[in-house]
Amino acid sequence: MNEIKKATLGRLPIYLEFLREVQKERETVSTSFIAKGLSLGDVQVKKDLSSVCNKGKPKIGYKTAELIRDIEKIITNVKTGIVLVGAGKIGKAILDYDGFSKFGLNIVAAFDNDEEKIGKSENGKVILPMSQLKEYCEKNGISIGIITVPKLFAQEVCDKLIDSGVKAIWNFAPVKLTTDKNVTILQENLALSLAYLNLMSI
Amino acid sequence: MNEIKKATLGRLPIYLEFLREVQKERETVSTSFIAKGLSLGDVQVKKDLSSVCNKGKPKIGYKTAELIRDIEKIITNVKTGIVLVGAGKIGKAILDYDGFSKFGLNIVAAFDNDEEKIGKSENGKVILPMSQLKEYCEKNGISIGIITVPKLFAQEVCDKLIDSGVKAIWNFAPVKLTTDKNVTILQENLALSLAYLNLMSI
Repeated sequence: MNEIKKATLGRLPIYLEFLREVQKERETVSTSFIAKGLSLGDVQVKKDLSSVCNKGKPKIGYKTAELIRDIEKIITNVKTGIVLVGAGKIGKAILDYDGFSKFGLNIVAAFDNDEEKIGKSENGKVILPMSQLKEYCEKNGISIGIITVPKLFAQEVCDKLIDSGVKAIWNFAPVKLTTDKNVTILQENLALSLAYLNLMSI
Repeated sequence: MNEIKKATLGRLPIYLEFLREVQKERETVSTSFIAKGLSLGDVQVKKDLSSVCNKGKPKIGYKTAELIRDIEKIITNVKTGIVLVGAGKIGKAILDYDGFSKFGLNIVAAFDNDEEKIGKSENGKVILPMSQLKEYCEKNGISIGIITVPKLFAQEVCDKLIDSGVKAIWNFAPVKLTTDKNVTILQENLALSLAYLNLMSI
């Protein structure tokens, strides 16, 4: 097995989700079947999978269960801490979301400035004051921050998270965040999705 | 100006968002500048834009303000009705989201089965009983439905929305929806996004 490239790593959740879906119907899967199902290139899928599982066979492909197990092993091996900043409506919805556990993911704490929210908990996650963000992140090895504050404060929160050692940020505020540090920022653009659907509905 | 293809229509919000971002710094934009900024192919951008605005000039490109105006005209010309089903935490967060108006989009009503929610309103949108969904959609020409119910009920709600005349669905429930009708279904996969970030944070 070769070393896994970062771009390959990024695609593993997509493969895993697809394989879990087809697992019941297909005991084995070929790379071309996967490529077609995910609209990816044949060569790319072949390369990606050969770097995570060395048991693929020519003409047959992979045993689905085996491939799932190998991808799960890599994904769940990455143990990162996740916090959320901004316990407003979107923040609470994310804290409550029940879909993350299928990838072994769990938000461990939330932060807010609102005195009325601090000390309470949402879906078992305690809401802490912003003043404790840096110390908490450093102590608990937090590497992912989710931003669900109003757009006016999003860049400031982004800077604070990065200063606290976070390596990846998921931003729900409708504003583009920037940084000169080596941090992955994923912009959740809900408005673009709805605008797309709007044009598809005619 | 040629007829606008559906795939081109689907990309217009992305162009609009990008152009609005660069508008302050750039009075004119070339198609290659846009293509680079959005990681799209040069030829595709050229084709897309020539079908929405006929004022592009060789070597100069488009006047940014003019291109924005022409794209906005097309987007805001599509007047669809949007409803949301499931006024739980995610539903309320979506009803409250302030980013949709920049594309002229507005959710007009929400539906739920919960007696305690029915009749109340969230961010000015009244919550109606599920029993009124079909009649409301037909009377008000609703063509987009947003699904924010628990995953167990999502397919049932999807079928009801399609039966009520909806042409595009945005699904937040962590389950894949299917239909044999000609309806666009956009699956919002929050877990995949977080799983991706998790692998990028190491």
